Amino acid sequence: MGTTEHTRVSPIDGGITAPKGFRASGIAWGIKASGKPDLALLAADGPVAAAAIFTTNQAKAAPLLISAEHLTSSHGHAQVIVTNSGCANACTGPQGLADAREMAVITANRIGCSPSHTLVASTGVIGVNLRMDALRAGIPNAVAALSPDGHADAARAIMTTDPFPKSYAVEVITSSGTFRVGGMAKGSGMIEPRMATMLGYLTTDAVVEPSLLRRALTDASRYTFNAITVDGESSTNDCVFALASGASGVVIDDDSYLALFEGLRQVALELSLNIVRGGEGATKLIAITVSGARSEDDAWTAARVIANSPLVKTAIHGADPNWGRLIAAAGRSGVRFLLDHALVRIGPLVLFSNGQPHDHLAPQASDYLQGKELEIEVNVGAGGTCRATVYTCDLSAEYVKINAEYRT
Amino acid sequence: MGTTEHTRVSPIDGGITAPKGFRASGIAWGIKASGKPDLALLAADGPVAAAAIFTTNQAKAAPLLISAEHLTSSHGHAQVIVTNSGCANACTGPQGLADAREMAVITANRIGCSPSHTLVASTGVIGVNLRMDALRAGIPNAVAALSPDGHADAARAIMTTDPFPKSYAVEVITSSGTFRVGGMAKGSGMIEPRMATMLGYLTTDAVVEPSLLRRALTDASRYTFNAITVDGESSTNDCVFALASGASGVVIDDDSYLALFEGLRQVALELSLNIVRGGEGATKLIAITVSGARSEDDAWTAARVIANSPLVKTAIHGADPNWGRLIAAAGRSGVRFLLDHALVRIGPLVLFSNGQPHDHLAPQASDYLQGKELEIEVNVGAGGTCRATVYTCDLSAEYVKINAEYRT
Repeated sequence: MGTTEHTRVSPIDGGITAPKGFRASGIAWGIKASGKPDLALLAADGPVAAAAIFTTNQAKAAPLLISAEHLTSSHGHAQVIVTNSGCANACTGPQGLADAREMAVITANRIGCSPSHTLVASTGVIGVNLRMDALRAGIPNAVAALSPDGHADAARAIMTTDPFPKSYAVEVITSSGTFRVGGMAKGSGMIEPRMATMLGYLTTDAVVEPSLLRRALTDASRYTFNAITVDGESSTNDCVFALASGASGVVIDDDSYLALFEGLRQVALELSLNIVRGGEGATKLIAITVSGARSEDDAWTAARVIANSPLVKTAIHGADPNWGRLIAAAGRSGVRFLLDHALVRIGPLVLFSNGQPHDHLAPQASDYLQGKELEIEVNVGAGGTCRATVYTCDLSAEYVKINAEYRT
Repeated sequence: MGTTEHTRVSPIDGGITAPKGFRASGIAWGIKASGKPDLALLAADGPVAAAAIFTTNQAKAAPLLISAEHLTSSHGHAQVIVTNSGCANACTGPQGLADAREMAVITANRIGCSPSHTLVASTGVIGVNLRMDALRAGIPNAVAALSPDGHADAARAIMTTDPFPKSYAVEVITSSGTFRVGGMAKGSGMIEPRMATMLGYLTTDAVVEPSLLRRALTDASRYTFNAITVDGESSTNDCVFALASGASGVVIDDDSYLALFEGLRQVALELSLNIVRGGEGATKLIAITVSGARSEDDAWTAARVIANSPLVKTAIHGADPNWGRLIAAAGRSGVRFLLDHALVRIGPLVLFSNGQPHDHLAPQASDYLQGKELEIEVNVGAGGTCRATVYTCDLSAEYVKINAEYRT
């Protein structure tokens, strides 16, 4: 899935506001006790095509329920997304729903659009009510701060335990014209999105119908947001949004679909990998590829099990080429696995094949594992041709420290 | 599932050799570089009824394949179990199978029984071949050391990262006579057995047909060995054995089946809880009960997801009553979950019910979580009456340390 013959994709500056027709802002308004930025806006110049994917967690947070309701009533259009960090507004009952609804109304009134064209997102501690006084006072300031260069402020204001902001943009040059795709995301812990990420935002200035935008968002997420894990936890607040302003005048139809897909995929992949690079306590980014599977589902399942194995993740943290743990994880994954035909590759080194260890390579493998960006392949030996890659990080004592002390 | 009207179960000393008709030994024979005990024998006076449950991991270790073969050819009878620690003899190809077979033959020759009446088990590092020279010299010494009081030596010789040996026995007094059940187990990491535990051994001097022994072992394991987790990992070497010497003369039939079940269950439960108490890096034993589920399968699934959640386990490690993580884990478990009817109980304190947090109880809950043995209940609100309890431990920085440094 590289670029097609007539399409070229190149990175550009500008993040979420790189595509024409978008402004963003990020300010501190006292929701976080630390005083760090905690309120972000992303706005188009008018209602534009919009799509979203929400967490599959059945304990969905209030802002997701409101955003889904608005996207349905607006038939896939939105003008503004308002996001707070520091409080997830999840497990907060009827008050939580009323608060999320009020966030949308206050924002819509200030922007001058319909509340149904307003999407809402929250991230932070579960089970605590929003400080609505802070939001009522803060949202007008965030609207006043909206700027075509606001991408960095916004990316900073959606962070929680993230060690750095995640922002990326590309220019897509096609035979019928040039358009841009921008994005930002947050996420560090409680990351195995499956259907989205903690919070992801993608913009484009291509002209796209809502239904096609939704298809491209779903397809691109499959290999990016849906292919990462930090700790196997799917959050109550996961969601990824896409807005298409149309300001470039480049129309996306079935023929040019792959250009949009590729633009979204490259932005989403860079954001996703940065989520893993900045995973709680992470010191390494690891691409786990499972090959030789009988079906694509089998490949995904085995790759996820390996990528979430605490024994695999701690071994890699210690640069220990303990390939037996990779085999054990694949063997318990439930997919067809034949030990005598299985293979384990750590970087360029095959440590196990045809039922036999090649332990003389262990010292070289240990050197390779000292690196920061690693590739590991497990062929499950089932004789199939299907493969899948899941991106994960190592498991460090720092992860335990962060999460044993999160609230107290 | 307490004792029945006519049955009384009481703890006794003597572990695996408490039932009549068994001898055991445990010696150091240089398989472990540390010089700690690494070779254990458990022997009956002749071939007796035997049953075993093996790991569901598809990467089964060589000794398990040989033991399964022998149990089949002997129609459920065995006289001796030989176990080494320090090397799992897993992922070792044809040489591994030949080595496991030779372990059985050497043992059988010394004991004076058929190789098909010999069961074999190994535990330790995956992917390394057995030091057969050490075993050839060691097994005769282990046979010579067999003793009716050998339970403590044997329990010590099967340990790897275990912080303490696991040994337990009970006396079962029924209207038709008294019999005993003894057991030992090892396990500390790579623990979510599902079908067995790392290594478990149960003996009884009741008279039991192999088929009935197998049924009792399976039933008792469901609520004990199969209900624990340390890290969600199922090992290549998990297995649990049961031997029935018949030396008490008490015959188990369909009518007295529950007495045998109860004896096995109580011994297996104590061993299982000690595996979790001694889990790698564990400081707390946590019983996670899921209630309100529509089916027993749903209850088990949700309880397992919660019990393996790194965010739940780190929060409890930090004595943080972060009930939102319990809700998030239940919500992503895939079983029917209704947030508005869900409930979270930490010890005696209900922190969330009917969609509402009760956060004023958080300080009391934090005090409760300072304890070493904890009870947590999550009602998934699905309106069902099914429940399940899974036993887990907290996740500490020590777990990471142990597993990042296991081989290197």
